[in-house]
Amino acid sequence: MSEHDTVRPVRWTPPALRLLDQRRLPDSVEYVDCFSAHQVADAIRDMVVRGAPAIGIAAAYGVVLAVRDALGRERACWRAALDRDLEWLARSRPTAVNLAWSLRRMSTALDHAAGDPATAAENEAEAIFREDLAANYRMGELGAAWVDGAEAVLTHCNTGSLATAGYGTALGVIRTAYKAGRIRRVYADETRPWLQGARLTAWELRQDGIPVTLIADSAAAPLMRTGAVKWIIVGADRITANGDVANKIGTYGLALAARIHGVRFMVVAPTATIDPALPHGDAIPIEDRGEDELLCINGRRIAPEGVDAWNPVFDVTPAEYVDVLVTERGAVERPDAAAIKALLRRGGGQQGS
Amino acid sequence: MSEHDTVRPVRWTPPALRLLDQRRLPDSVEYVDCFSAHQVADAIRDMVVRGAPAIGIAAAYGVVLAVRDALGRERACWRAALDRDLEWLARSRPTAVNLAWSLRRMSTALDHAAGDPATAAENEAEAIFREDLAANYRMGELGAAWVDGAEAVLTHCNTGSLATAGYGTALGVIRTAYKAGRIRRVYADETRPWLQGARLTAWELRQDGIPVTLIADSAAAPLMRTGAVKWIIVGADRITANGDVANKIGTYGLALAARIHGVRFMVVAPTATIDPALPHGDAIPIEDRGEDELLCINGRRIAPEGVDAWNPVFDVTPAEYVDVLVTERGAVERPDAAAIKALLRRGGGQQGS
Repeated sequence: MSEHDTVRPVRWTPPALRLLDQRRLPDSVEYVDCFSAHQVADAIRDMVVRGAPAIGIAAAYGVVLAVRDALGRERACWRAALDRDLEWLARSRPTAVNLAWSLRRMSTALDHAAGDPATAAENEAEAIFREDLAANYRMGELGAAWVDGAEAVLTHCNTGSLATAGYGTALGVIRTAYKAGRIRRVYADETRPWLQGARLTAWELRQDGIPVTLIADSAAAPLMRTGAVKWIIVGADRITANGDVANKIGTYGLALAARIHGVRFMVVAPTATIDPALPHGDAIPIEDRGEDELLCINGRRIAPEGVDAWNPVFDVTPAEYVDVLVTERGAVERPDAAAIKALLRRGGGQQGS
Repeated sequence: MSEHDTVRPVRWTPPALRLLDQRRLPDSVEYVDCFSAHQVADAIRDMVVRGAPAIGIAAAYGVVLAVRDALGRERACWRAALDRDLEWLARSRPTAVNLAWSLRRMSTALDHAAGDPATAAENEAEAIFREDLAANYRMGELGAAWVDGAEAVLTHCNTGSLATAGYGTALGVIRTAYKAGRIRRVYADETRPWLQGARLTAWELRQDGIPVTLIADSAAAPLMRTGAVKWIIVGADRITANGDVANKIGTYGLALAARIHGVRFMVVAPTATIDPALPHGDAIPIEDRGEDELLCINGRRIAPEGVDAWNPVFDVTPAEYVDVLVTERGAVERPDAAAIKALLRRGGGQQGS
């Protein structure tokens, strides 16, 4: 790890999976130890760990815990016991496809395991972790190459070390661009309602010594109008076969404003985020996390009683608004169905779908 | 007051001006009594009272308090003493032009007062109050006539009874449209960072029995994409000679998204909000309210130490994005310099500038 890359949200510390509790940041740095797949599923649902790639990695280790548990309890029919836990993990959050991708990959590895299933599971989870980190470094290089002459960039939500094995997707590109002297400042949307930008991105960039200025989500369009940012760089939770991008609520509005202001729009995500089974963005299941995230802040109610809220957690940005899609297998300009297909054919990782 | 119109933020209760403390809503309904112009200026700066028309009305009564005070202390040269207080009031907030308009109007009334200056000031402040309320009812009728076949509308910030003498500008149009059965639901942006939507608009609409659904500011573009809203209806803090509109941060992004989705965009403001001295929006002074509004929520810091913030309170929406401008003197489609000039020539109120 370099000085601009120090944070890791998921650590395999047998017999537990240790998760940095992202609900508590930046107030305190606390960890949650998970000893079972159910505890991992709860941690994913409750957002102890969040971010599409980090969810996939946590779920992979959840499978390791499930295999150990199944072998301990029902050695003869451990696979049947495991399947129930896989189902449980799969249901923890609906939008990020990395979760399903990771579980499929663990399942396939167990199907083909020659020796001890527990060891096979552990090796595969470690591979997923290592490959994600390597993918992020690679995407950092590929993405930063596009960011030239931009004094500052704007990012949304948290796509950094906290959202991945480490280094980050969009924030990985920003880290690499910062190290290379291509940018000097990051503007971060606060990202209501969960405040991932204010709490997590700001914290992570401060930890790593990268200058960050926080703005209200609604200040992004005026910021673009000032000419202060030349690129918007975001991650993705699911990308469909035609290149449509599901990402944190607010991404779509940024993409619209970017196009109007001539600001370029970059999506950074490993190919595990691509779901070739879905033809377009309207088919993506969008999670609704309930009204309280909007009606309350810091556990205190801000809206009056009797008011309801609409709280979709993600939105879909049509492919036509994406100027560059950066994956670990390469970057494509103005992605479309053909480009997505070509990317997935390129190989380079073990794409499970 | 009808059942859909019960809230009043400014009450003249001599010897004090009684202000509903909007910082405390919706948690508690408390009042601040101001006995001097300085206290009124502080209340405006600290946002006990906010909303361009309500600021103008509070400032007018601030002048009444100043005149009483000056007459009491320095009967011979009361006008010189008053001018210092006028200066103080004028500096309390920079963007809303209604404040300057109201002070000019009070000053002119005092210049032409035949009898007791205190009585003249009180009469003029009452006239400003009454005319604002009448303007809001009139704008309600004019604006609601445009809103047909819209199941729901979206509004931003608070432009209701709390922001005016009563009834509201944009929210006055919404009230009238609701009473007429033209809309059934209001979507309200929470309006970070001060949460005027979540705290004030939601509270006010609930008080008056109008169904309201809260959304994150960044959910507005996805909401428009669903087709749920046909109109966005907002207020204004200053409108320039060419029709550009300064309004709460976030308005500009809404206007951009509205245009892309074929959602119509209505600005509702009394002609006192028009500043014919400024040629276009780039000339409007935009208030920056400091970083803490973004870095802290409910008095608790949410962002880590060492992070800075950019917190402009208003943004400017170019006239080309305004489909309809509604004033008490009439509504104009696609306002431009000629239309604004014609509106101001129409008369109907006492336009001071």
